[in-house]
Amino acid sequence: MPNKFHAPLAIQALEAGKHVFCEKPPALHAGEVEQMMAAAGKAGKIVMFNFNNRARPESQAMMQYIAEGVVGTINSAQSQWIRRTGIPGFGGWFTNKELSGGGPVIDLLHMVDLALYFMGYPEPAHVLGQTFDDFITDSSFKGPWGIPDNKEGVTDVEAAAHGFVTFKTGQVLSIRNSWAEMNEREVVSVVFQGSRAGGKVERLFGIDGLDETAIDSCELYVQENGNSVNRSIVTEPCEDMGRIGSAANFAETIEGRAEPLNTPDQALKLMKIIDALYESAGSGAPVAL
Amino acid sequence: MPNKFHAPLAIQALEAGKHVFCEKPPALHAGEVEQMMAAAGKAGKIVMFNFNNRARPESQAMMQYIAEGVVGTINSAQSQWIRRTGIPGFGGWFTNKELSGGGPVIDLLHMVDLALYFMGYPEPAHVLGQTFDDFITDSSFKGPWGIPDNKEGVTDVEAAAHGFVTFKTGQVLSIRNSWAEMNEREVVSVVFQGSRAGGKVERLFGIDGLDETAIDSCELYVQENGNSVNRSIVTEPCEDMGRIGSAANFAETIEGRAEPLNTPDQALKLMKIIDALYESAGSGAPVAL
Amino acid sequence: MPNKFHAPLAIQALEAGKHVFCEKPPALHAGEVEQMMAAAGKAGKIVMFNFNNRARPESQAMMQYIAEGVVGTINSAQSQWIRRTGIPGFGGWFTNKELSGGGPVIDLLHMVDLALYFMGYPEPAHVLGQTFDDFITDSSFKGPWGIPDNKEGVTDVEAAAHGFVTFKTGQVLSIRNSWAEMNEREVVSVVFQGSRAGGKVERLFGIDGLDETAIDSCELYVQENGNSVNRSIVTEPCEDMGRIGSAANFAETIEGRAEPLNTPDQALKLMKIIDALYESAGSGAPVAL
Amino acid sequence: MPNKFHAPLAIQALEAGKHVFCEKPPALHAGEVEQMMAAAGKAGKIVMFNFNNRARPESQAMMQYIAEGVVGTINSAQSQWIRRTGIPGFGGWFTNKELSGGGPVIDLLHMVDLALYFMGYPEPAHVLGQTFDDFITDSSFKGPWGIPDNKEGVTDVEAAAHGFVTFKTGQVLSIRNSWAEMNEREVVSVVFQGSRAGGKVERLFGIDGLDETAIDSCELYVQENGNSVNRSIVTEPCEDMGRIGSAANFAETIEGRAEPLNTPDQALKLMKIIDALYESAGSGAPVAL
Amino acid sequence: MPNKFHAPLAIQALEAGKHVFCEKPPALHAGEVEQMMAAAGKAGKIVMFNFNNRARPESQAMMQYIAEGVVGTINSAQSQWIRRTGIPGFGGWFTNKELSGGGPVIDLLHMVDLALYFMGYPEPAHVLGQTFDDFITDSSFKGPWGIPDNKEGVTDVEAAAHGFVTFKTGQVLSIRNSWAEMNEREVVSVVFQGSRAGGKVERLFGIDGLDETAIDSCELYVQENGNSVNRSIVTEPCEDMGRIGSAANFAETIEGRAEPLNTPDQALKLMKIIDALYESAGSGAPVAL
Amino acid sequence: MPNKFHAPLAIQALEAGKHVFCEKPPALHAGEVEQMMAAAGKAGKIVMFNFNNRARPESQAMMQYIAEGVVGTINSAQSQWIRRTGIPGFGGWFTNKELSGGGPVIDLLHMVDLALYFMGYPEPAHVLGQTFDDFITDSSFKGPWGIPDNKEGVTDVEAAAHGFVTFKTGQVLSIRNSWAEMNEREVVSVVFQGSRAGGKVERLFGIDGLDETAIDSCELYVQENGNSVNRSIVTEPCEDMGRIGSAANFAETIEGRAEPLNTPDQALKLMKIIDALYESAGSGAPVAL
Repeated sequence: MPNKFHAPLAIQALEAGKHVFCEKPPALHAGEVEQMMAAAGKAGKIVMFNFNNRARPESQAMMQYIAEGVVGTINSAQSQWIRRTGIPGFGGWFTNKELSGGGPVIDLLHMVDLALYFMGYPEPAHVLGQTFDDFITDSSFKGPWGIPDNKEGVTDVEAAAHGFVTFKTGQVLSIRNSWAEMNEREVVSVVFQGSRAGGKVERLFGIDGLDETAIDSCELYVQENGNSVNRSIVTEPCEDMGRIGSAANFAETIEGRAEPLNTPDQALKLMKIIDALYESAGSGAPVAL
Repeated sequence: MPNKFHAPLAIQALEAGKHVFCEKPPALHAGEVEQMMAAAGKAGKIVMFNFNNRARPESQAMMQYIAEGVVGTINSAQSQWIRRTGIPGFGGWFTNKELSGGGPVIDLLHMVDLALYFMGYPEPAHVLGQTFDDFITDSSFKGPWGIPDNKEGVTDVEAAAHGFVTFKTGQVLSIRNSWAEMNEREVVSVVFQGSRAGGKVERLFGIDGLDETAIDSCELYVQENGNSVNRSIVTEPCEDMGRIGSAANFAETIEGRAEPLNTPDQALKLMKIIDALYESAGSGAPVAL
Repeated sequence: MPNKFHAPLAIQALEAGKHVFCEKPPALHAGEVEQMMAAAGKAGKIVMFNFNNRARPESQAMMQYIAEGVVGTINSAQSQWIRRTGIPGFGGWFTNKELSGGGPVIDLLHMVDLALYFMGYPEPAHVLGQTFDDFITDSSFKGPWGIPDNKEGVTDVEAAAHGFVTFKTGQVLSIRNSWAEMNEREVVSVVFQGSRAGGKVERLFGIDGLDETAIDSCELYVQENGNSVNRSIVTEPCEDMGRIGSAANFAETIEGRAEPLNTPDQALKLMKIIDALYESAGSGAPVAL
Repeated sequence: MPNKFHAPLAIQALEAGKHVFCEKPPALHAGEVEQMMAAAGKAGKIVMFNFNNRARPESQAMMQYIAEGVVGTINSAQSQWIRRTGIPGFGGWFTNKELSGGGPVIDLLHMVDLALYFMGYPEPAHVLGQTFDDFITDSSFKGPWGIPDNKEGVTDVEAAAHGFVTFKTGQVLSIRNSWAEMNEREVVSVVFQGSRAGGKVERLFGIDGLDETAIDSCELYVQENGNSVNRSIVTEPCEDMGRIGSAANFAETIEGRAEPLNTPDQALKLMKIIDALYESAGSGAPVAL
Repeated sequence: MPNKFHAPLAIQALEAGKHVFCEKPPALHAGEVEQMMAAAGKAGKIVMFNFNNRARPESQAMMQYIAEGVVGTINSAQSQWIRRTGIPGFGGWFTNKELSGGGPVIDLLHMVDLALYFMGYPEPAHVLGQTFDDFITDSSFKGPWGIPDNKEGVTDVEAAAHGFVTFKTGQVLSIRNSWAEMNEREVVSVVFQGSRAGGKVERLFGIDGLDETAIDSCELYVQENGNSVNRSIVTEPCEDMGRIGSAANFAETIEGRAEPLNTPDQALKLMKIIDALYESAGSGAPVAL
Repeated sequence: MPNKFHAPLAIQALEAGKHVFCEKPPALHAGEVEQMMAAAGKAGKIVMFNFNNRARPESQAMMQYIAEGVVGTINSAQSQWIRRTGIPGFGGWFTNKELSGGGPVIDLLHMVDLALYFMGYPEPAHVLGQTFDDFITDSSFKGPWGIPDNKEGVTDVEAAAHGFVTFKTGQVLSIRNSWAEMNEREVVSVVFQGSRAGGKVERLFGIDGLDETAIDSCELYVQENGNSVNRSIVTEPCEDMGRIGSAANFAETIEGRAEPLNTPDQALKLMKIIDALYESAGSGAPVAL
C-alpha cells in the first residue's frame, strides 16, 4: 500500500476507535504525523509505527547497554542503509513521490530511526543534505526482490541521499540512504561514538539485498584499564529484522503488557528531519529546525 | 616544528627568494595562506604543501581513472582519518591550539584534501560540523608513536570532529577526523560515489597507528553490462604514505620537470573549510562560505 | 538416456519435422553430428545442444566483455572439469563406451565447449593427449550424486584425460577432464589469457560434487595505467549451471526471438577435438585435424 | 652473466681440470649440453647445474614420498611459473635470444625440471607448444626486481609459452611459463596426479615477484579407507628457494659426501624438451623426440 | 524419557525376550548396568546403547586408522563437550538428579565414550574430578533447543565438570563436560596424542547448539620423514551425529550382519568412570577403581 | 646455566648480601626453594624468579580484570605449553634430569604459574598425572631454536606430561606440557572458567617455536543482559613474552618502587605441584599435598 494512504487510513481507523499499528514510514511528511497524533489523542487510542529494526535482538541488546550507562552520551552517529543496486522496481508507487513521499530517504528510514533511538531522540537543530538521482531509471540497478515494472509510471524520487543533522544537545548524526549508488556493497548499519563506548549494529549480506544471506553483528568498543577492548555481542539469529517482534510489541502494548517500542513524538521528529533533508537538498541551503 | 611557524617562516623564505615546500597544514588558518600566497606572488616563487597522501600510488592510480572520466562526477565523498587511541602526546604543541591551530581536524587533514583533490576541489557552499573533546586528556588514548608528555602544557584542542560540506556544484563531502574516539579501529580513507563509478583509497593497520603494519587498498566500483563489478587495483607497496614522492614532486616542479601535485589555491580552499568547521562547531550553526 | 541414442533419436525427430534440443554430448562422435546436421538441413529444422554452461550468468557476462573487445584475442585457455571422486556410478551406461562414447572427456565436455566459445571456436590444427583409467573401478571414487551400481555392467572408459590443442589461428587450449583423479578438489573452470585481458569463470564447491554448495566466480585480469587490476564481476546466483536459461534459449530461438546459444558447426568442431583426443591417447601420437 | 657463456666457460673450466657448478639454464640448447658432457667425460670431472628448486625443503619432502612409493606412478603433471608482470628488464641480455637462448621458457625452467624430477625424468615422445610475445616490450609488465633498461637492446624473445609433452612411458606434462601474461597472479608450482597420490609444491606471493613475501606449500592428496585425505606437509621456511642447499649439494658431491641433486643426462633431456617447445611454436606442428 | 527408566524398561524388555537398543546414558549408575547385563545374559538377548557419536563418519574414519596401527598407543586424550549456554531447560527431568542421574557429565558422555573407544577402553585406575553448579538456575544459560521450563521442578545437578582419569595401561584421559560455563564457544571433541600419531574429531557450530550449523573435522597429526604432517580427512557430511547409523548398526547386529558398535562391558566401564567422577567431586579426594 | 645451579648460586649470592633475581625454574625441587627462602630470610634480602609470562601485557591486562572482580572465582583452568617438535637439543643439560630437574614440566612451567597466578595461588590438595617419553631421542622433534647436540649426553627426562590438580578451595587445574607430542600445533595458553567470566591468554605461532611469528590474544567471555559476549582485549605487541618487564619489575622492587610480580611462597607452591606431578607419574597413584 502506497505511503500516501498511511495517514488517512490510520486517522480513519483511530476515529473508528481502533488502536493503529502503521507500517513505516509514518506518513508522507511531518504534518500528517501531527494529524495522526491529534486523531489518536482525540480518540484516546494508541498509534504505533512498524520501526521493526528496533525489535531486532541486536538493537535491543545495544539499547540495554545504553540504558545501563555503558555507552554514556552518544556524541556522534552514522546511520546507513546504502544499496548498490536496490531500486524496488520502476514505475510503481515506490518511485512516485506523490504516492511514496520520496525514495530511499523515506523508504529506508530504519537506520535513521535506530540511530535516533540510541541517541535518545534529541531535539534537532540544523539539517544540511543533498539528494542525487543518478541511475534512478536504470534497470540494471533494480534489487533482486524488486516488484514488476510499470512502463507508464512516474519516476521522480531520489536514488541516494546524504545528510548531516546537529541537535540542540550538541550531538550529531550523519545520514546515508540509497537505492542505487556506486557503493562497494549494501550496508545496513548504525555506528556511534559515545562518551564511554562506541558501538555498531550492522547487517551485511552474502548476496546483497537477500535477507536469508544476512550477516549480522552487534559490537561495543570500549576502553578498559588503558586497553582498547572490542566486545562482540552474540544475539540470537533474526532473519526477519525484527518484524515479528515489532508486531508483538504493538499487541502487548495495547494489552498493557509492554512499553511501546516507539512513540508518535519520535515519529514526528523523524519525519521533521526527513522533511528538512529534502528541503535542504532542494534549496541547497541548511535548514534550521 | 609547531604549525604556528609555517606561515611566518614560509613568508620569510619566499621574501629571501626561495621556493618553499611547507609541511602540512598549510597554516593556522586561511588568512595566513592568503598572506603566503601574496608573498609567493610578490617574490615570483613557488610555494607548495606536503600533502603527501596525494603522492601515494593508490591516490595517483585513482586520480588517473578520474582524469579519464571513468568515475564521472563525484556526487558524494566521505573522508576519514579516525583514530581510536592516537593522541600525539600530552602538553606538547600538538594539543595547544595557539601553536597548532587545532587537533585532528588540522593535523589529519590529509583525507579531506585527498577527497577534495578527487572531487576537483569544487567551490564550498555550506559547512555544518561539531567537535568533541572527550578523552583529550586521557593518557590511555595516546598513540603508540606519541611524543613525550609535558605536564605543564596547555591542552585545548578537540579530540574528534564530524562535519558535512556542500559545494556550489551540488557535490557533498562528509568529514570525520579524530585522535581519540570510540571507534572500532583506525581508518584512513576516502570513499566516493560518482556518476559513473564509486571508489575507495584506504589504509588500515595490523596494529593501529603503525605504518609498518599498513594494509592498503585501492578499489573502483562500477556497473558493467548490467552487473556490479569491483575492481581491485594493485599498486606498488608504499609504507611512507607518499612522503618521498611528495618531496620529489616539489623538487621536480621547481626544476620545471613536473606539474605541482598541489597549488596554493587548493590549500586556501582547504583551510577555509577547516576554519568553517571549527566556526560551526563553536557556534552550533551552519557556516556559509 | 545413454548418449548412444542422441543422434538416432534426434535424426528421427528432425525427419518428423521437429526442432530438436539435444542433451549434451551432441553424439558419440563427429560423424554422428554430421548426420544430424544433414538431417536438420534436409528437414529445414533447428538442432541445438544443451551446452547449459554457456547460459550461466558468469559465461554470458564474460562473453559480453569478449564481444566488446575488452579481452582482445584469447591466446591461450585452460579448460578444466576435474573431479577427485566423481565417477557417476559403476556398470551403468556412463562407464560403457559403446553406450556413452567415453568417460569424463565426453561427459564433462562443458568447459572445453565454454573455452572454445570464448575463443571464437577457431579451426583446430593439432591435438596431443592422453587418458588414464586408474580408479575407474574403485568404488571409493564414486560421486555423492552417483547412480545405483550394476555389477554386471561393462566399464571400459577413461577416468581422467589431459590434452592440448593448437588452432590454425595460433591459439592454444589445454584440457583436463576427470571423474577420478588425485586432485586437491573438484574444479570446474575456464581460465584464459588474452592480448588485452585474462579471465576466469569458475565453480568450486563447499562439498565436492554438490551444486547446492557451489562457489562461483567470474573475474577479469587487466592492466590499467600501468597497474594490474583484478575485476570481480558480481552475477546473480545460478545453482543450476544455466540449465533453465539454456532450455529457454532453445525455445526462444525456435520462436525467432533469440539468437541460438550454440550451433551445429560448433558441436561438430567440439566432437572432432574430442575424437582426436581419444585417438591421440590411443596411438600415443599427435593428431592433425 | 648471459646464458650464452654457460657452455663455453664450463667447458673451459672442465678442460682446466675443475669440477663445474653451472647456473641454470644448462646452456642455450641441447647441443651445447652434449658438448659439456663430452668435456666432463674427457676431463673426468663433475658438471652440475643449479636447479636450486630441487633443493627446497618442499621438493625434498615430496621426493621422499615419491621414493617411498606413496605417490605411485605420476600419470600427469602441470608445471607452472607464470608471472603477470615479471619481465626482467628491457634491452638487457635477458630479452636478447642470441645471448639468453629465449625468454621465460628457458629463464623459468625450474618448475619443468622439478616436474620431470618428480616424474622420474622419463623419455620424452612428443612436444606440442606455442609461444606468445604480447607485452614483451611493454614497460608496465616489468618485474619489481627488474634490472635497468637498455634502450639500444634487442628484444626478440617470447613473453609466455604453453606446451604439452608426452613421454614414452605414457606420462604427460603440461607446461606454462611466462614473464608477462594476463594471469590472476604469479604462480610457481608443480602439481601432479599419481596412481596412488596427487601432490603440489607451490610458491605464491604476498606481493608478486618478491621472495620475502613467499607463501609456500607442500601437499599430498590421497585416498585412505575410502575417504579423500589432504596432507599438508610442514617444512622449514626457505625464502631463498633452495639456493644455499643447491650449492651445498655440489660441494658435498665433489667431496663424495652426497649424491648429486641433478645429472647432466637430466639437463640434456630438459634442454631437448625446451628446444622442441620452441621448434613446435615456430613451426606450428608437433615435434617428435 | 528420563534416564531413570532406562534400566528398568530395558530389563523388562530383555525379560520379555527382546533385544534392547537403549538410549544413552546406559543407566543412572554402573550398578544398573550390571543388572542390565545380567538380564541380557539370562535372556540370551543383546543390549546395546545409542552411543551415536561412534557411528559418525569422522569417528569411523578415525577408528580405521587406529585399527591399522597408524596411531599407535594413545597415550593421552582430551574429551570435551563444553557448552557455554546449553542447559536443556529448567525444572524438567534433565536437571533432577533422581530422574537423570546427573547433569552434563551423564547427559553429554558421548565424547568420553568416544575417547575410550579410540583408546581401546582400557581398565581405569584412578579418577580425580570436580563439578560446579554456577549458572544452573540462570535462565540466560538455556540452550536454543531447550525444553519448556517447569517452575516447580527440582534442580540439583552440576552445570560443569572437570576430571582426569588414569588407566592401568599408563594412558590418561582428561574430561570436560558442561551445559553452562564461561567458555569461548561450544566444543564437541576428542583430541588425542598417540605414540605414532595424534588426532582430532571435532564439531563446532556456526551458531552454538544448532546441529544444522555444524562445522565438523577429522584430522591426524603425524611425523613423516622428519616433517610434521597434518592430514585432513574429508568424510561425508552427517548433521545427525551418527544417529541413523547407530540405530542401523543395532538392527544389523541383531540380524547378525554387523559387529556391534558398542558392548555392555564398555558401557559398564564408562558408567564406573562417571560414578567415580561424581564421587571424587563429592569427597574432594581421588577415587581408585 | 643448568637448573641444578639455581639454588646453590642464589643462596651464595643471598649470603653475600645480594638481592637475587633467579631464572626459572626456581630450583630442581621444592626442597631447594625452601632453602633459598631460608637464606633470603636470614640475609634480609629479596629473592624473585623470572616468571616473565606474568609481565606480558596480556597477563597484566587479565590480572586487572581478575583484581576488579570481573572474573569472580576461577573454578577451573587449563594451562598448556604444548609443543609438537620442540625438544631443546639432545644430550645437553636440558634433557639430563640431574642437571635440569626434568623435561617440559619444569622447563615450560610458565603457563602453570600463570594459571595459578590468575587463580590466586590456592592451596593444592591432590595431584594426579602422567608423563610420556615417546620421541625424546628422536631428532626430528628438535625445536627450530634448539641448542647443538651432544652425542655423549644423558637423556632421561619426559617428552610430555598431563596432570590434574585439585585445590583445597575446590578449584581445579589441568596441566599439559610437552616438548614432543603429536599435537596439531604449538599452543601456549591459560584458559579459565570463572564464576562471572571465562578468559584466555594465548600465544600461537605462524611458524611453531619462533617468537617473531607470535600471534597473541587476550580474551574474556562474559554473559551480559542474557547474551554471550566475547571481549577481545587489544594489548601492545610484546614479542619477548615479558622478559624485559619481568627484569624491570625486579629492579623496581628492590628499589621499593613496585610490588614484586612473584613471591617465594608462590614459587614453593609451584614446585610442590611439579614434584607431585612427577611423583604421581612415577607411582601411578594420586599424590596428596
